[in-house]
Amino acid sequence: MEIAILGTGTVGRTLSEGLARHGHRVTVGTRDPEATRARDEAAFEGVTLRTFADAAADAELVILATSGQAALGVIEAAGPSRLAGKVLIDVANPLDFSNGFPPSLSVCNTTSLGEQVQAAAPEAKVVKALNTVAAPVMIDPASVAGGDHTLPICGDDAEAKATVTALLAELGWRDVLDLGPISGARATEAYLLLWTRLYAARQSAAFSIKVVS
Amino acid sequence: MEIAILGTGTVGRTLSEGLARHGHRVTVGTRDPEATRARDEAAFEGVTLRTFADAAADAELVILATSGQAALGVIEAAGPSRLAGKVLIDVANPLDFSNGFPPSLSVCNTTSLGEQVQAAAPEAKVVKALNTVAAPVMIDPASVAGGDHTLPICGDDAEAKATVTALLAELGWRDVLDLGPISGARATEAYLLLWTRLYAARQSAAFSIKVVS
Repeated sequence: MEIAILGTGTVGRTLSEGLARHGHRVTVGTRDPEATRARDEAAFEGVTLRTFADAAADAELVILATSGQAALGVIEAAGPSRLAGKVLIDVANPLDFSNGFPPSLSVCNTTSLGEQVQAAAPEAKVVKALNTVAAPVMIDPASVAGGDHTLPICGDDAEAKATVTALLAELGWRDVLDLGPISGARATEAYLLLWTRLYAARQSAAFSIKVVS
Repeated sequence: MEIAILGTGTVGRTLSEGLARHGHRVTVGTRDPEATRARDEAAFEGVTLRTFADAAADAELVILATSGQAALGVIEAAGPSRLAGKVLIDVANPLDFSNGFPPSLSVCNTTSLGEQVQAAAPEAKVVKALNTVAAPVMIDPASVAGGDHTLPICGDDAEAKATVTALLAELGWRDVLDLGPISGARATEAYLLLWTRLYAARQSAAFSIKVVS
């Protein structure tokens, strides 16, 4: 699949590598491709860097992999019209580190970043996914508990969620749990308040949760 | 142990039954013991009902098992001085159902009900615990996944957390995870946003999460 990843941080680079490994043609979107490459030649060796708009324009599926703070600006830079009709996986978390660690959320409870992203790109089919695990776990779920853990997703479009679930299965995700409409992002983003404390208690990001009954 | 449970709802009644089964002397606190008994004779058969203040006064350990909305009023009714020096397990969740299901939280993100309870009873040793599972799971963790799942707790007093962990072990809890100070309640209460959506997706409250690595 032609996949555009918006964001050149750890999450964007990790997803780019993981999806390319599974045969997808990945383009990474950034504000200024030349400046990004000049900043760290090694990190972007072999990576196709384009502007947010160009990356989004030619992709079949787009992944928003920026910080929560940058997310809505990047959607605007990509251009909502270029995202229209496309599956948009929102991996961003609205973490606010202004008071240090653990972070609080910059938006929560009665709305969510996922809903704001959907509102900013109303014709995109936004699926909130992968935001509940660290980057290495996103592309290699088997690295945690042999892959036996749960990934909650949500979104308003059932077909888009099926597309995302199939893509996740390629990466090794076998317990993908549909929480319903995009407002479920209130739940999976708020889970970051727990994730960050679990991270601190365990001194490691190599974990996940399994919903058991 | 002499245990006072504040609250006569499902959680209070279930905890009362479960702890009595393990040999503890349980008193249930309510605003008006006679009125509570008159409302449902059968539900309180064999249960010692006293006022919040009387129940708290004679207990070694107190459990706050009210709705989130009622919690601070009940602490006031019990009397902070009667809670001084005692372990106070806070099971309440600040759920706001005013806009229906799923609920939002009436307090979250940069504070929590757990912290408010600690502030209202400053000399009590508040431990937030058991608020992440449904009442039947609280007293019978083995009913879910053979008991192999995680209960996050938090509180400012290490000795109090050890007391609570030992009490939880009697009930069958063997993966109790200490998240640190009482501000961890921001995490475990916010998890209810996820719990309620998992409950809706699974159509059952008989579940929990296991932290895996």
